[in-house]
Amino acid sequence: MNKQQLLENIKRKQSFLCVGLDTDIKKIPDFLLDGHEPIFAFNKAIIDATADLCVAYKPNLAFYECLGLKGWKALEKTVMYIREKYPDQFIIADAKRGDIGNTSAMYARAFFEDMDIDAVTVAPYMGEDSVMPFLTYQDKWVILLALTSNKGSHDFQMTMDVDGERLFEKVLRKSQEWAGDDRMMYVVGATQGQAFEDIRKLVPNHFLLVPGVGAQGGSLEEVCKYGMTKECGLIVNSSRGIIYAGHDQNFAQAARRAAQEAQQQMAAQLKAFGI
Amino acid sequence: MNKQQLLENIKRKQSFLCVGLDTDIKKIPDFLLDGHEPIFAFNKAIIDATADLCVAYKPNLAFYECLGLKGWKALEKTVMYIREKYPDQFIIADAKRGDIGNTSAMYARAFFEDMDIDAVTVAPYMGEDSVMPFLTYQDKWVILLALTSNKGSHDFQMTMDVDGERLFEKVLRKSQEWAGDDRMMYVVGATQGQAFEDIRKLVPNHFLLVPGVGAQGGSLEEVCKYGMTKECGLIVNSSRGIIYAGHDQNFAQAARRAAQEAQQQMAAQLKAFGI
Repeated sequence: MNKQQLLENIKRKQSFLCVGLDTDIKKIPDFLLDGHEPIFAFNKAIIDATADLCVAYKPNLAFYECLGLKGWKALEKTVMYIREKYPDQFIIADAKRGDIGNTSAMYARAFFEDMDIDAVTVAPYMGEDSVMPFLTYQDKWVILLALTSNKGSHDFQMTMDVDGERLFEKVLRKSQEWAGDDRMMYVVGATQGQAFEDIRKLVPNHFLLVPGVGAQGGSLEEVCKYGMTKECGLIVNSSRGIIYAGHDQNFAQAARRAAQEAQQQMAAQLKAFGI
Repeated sequence: MNKQQLLENIKRKQSFLCVGLDTDIKKIPDFLLDGHEPIFAFNKAIIDATADLCVAYKPNLAFYECLGLKGWKALEKTVMYIREKYPDQFIIADAKRGDIGNTSAMYARAFFEDMDIDAVTVAPYMGEDSVMPFLTYQDKWVILLALTSNKGSHDFQMTMDVDGERLFEKVLRKSQEWAGDDRMMYVVGATQGQAFEDIRKLVPNHFLLVPGVGAQGGSLEEVCKYGMTKECGLIVNSSRGIIYAGHDQNFAQAARRAAQEAQQQMAAQLKAFGI
């Protein structure tokens, strides 16, 4: 999916919501466990209940890998289901990969060729040649970790160099030499508050993928106040707050209500920005 | 496996060789492709031909993930095969993972519980809470990326802060607050030459996992000169140089010869250090 298509979807749906499919076998409703493919059944129900309210889905690969073969099968089926039934959805593999060039190329092949995913989250620690192999695909995206939502983001990402530049700022600056805002986005945690202002100075037009609203304590209002651009520029993710909104037979309706609430808040923000 | 056992294996085998199982379906001998499980068949032959010459195996997960379900099955079978037939081998999942706490915990479960792997490579960018979940398992290890072997290692890892500390040095220093040398190792590329001296000042007793000898241009002599400790402290990986030493029916014997050559060089180094 290219940037224009993504922007149109956001405008049409009045939503920049990404639903995080962090599907944990220990947290899905018990009755699904009797079925043949509980993870896929759960995802399918969540997707059908939320697809008109969001513009993206983001399976976090850890939740599938920890189930081994069954998990990979569930992931592949989920991606294929979204791709076929809801082709306007932007699919993000939250994988946080990054390795030497020939190895990153293998990951890129796995996500972009074999699974037809739109974007992959990538860790910047290993530098340019670990990221470039992901950037060679038309209309596919790298979402580079910049300033994450967790406490540990302060350990290294905030490190200031001799020129007064913090590591996450260096990542933002340097990585723009590798690709433009038509192929690169950045992960910035909702918990980072006013750091969005500094980030927008460096990447005024890039999409930011924002986790950390909800369970992790970030505020949508604050993210929009400091991070929104005139064409939106935000994809805000919610995982647990939506997919585990309910725990019984009606879990999908509960997820829909939670997604609806998020979408309405987002519509209000978009309206305020004239989008 | 604990540190003492690993040290004993190194001494007994006079080797600190790790064979990297970066098994690429496009590079294995053609005749294997006719069989039922070509990746596993290749790995099994390589393992049987090298197990007495090395102390560790390191499958890089990208090479398995890019094959989807078949790849995961091959990985699981490979790990199980090593575990059962060669229980003295240290198995490293070269995964370069790292995510927020609850997600890292899922990865840890996948590698340490479901697959009984000994160690996982982890990227430090997200800081303490992304690493800690991997450190809660008895006799399991985190191998943290410090200074990698690729060109891009210069992009961020060398960034110097206001106190004159480079990012990889900060990673080495800070991460010692999380675990000691009985549970943490570091990735340092063989191409980094004299940086090993600086690294040994910070981590005099930790094991270093060293990729980049061979195909990437690093030298074993230099690595040993600057990186070896009185109890060895090195695991040197070779992937392509060993597993693709031959391309025909005799590929396993060719791999054995390449591993033998590496082992003999290592034995000479160990002898020189009185180990």
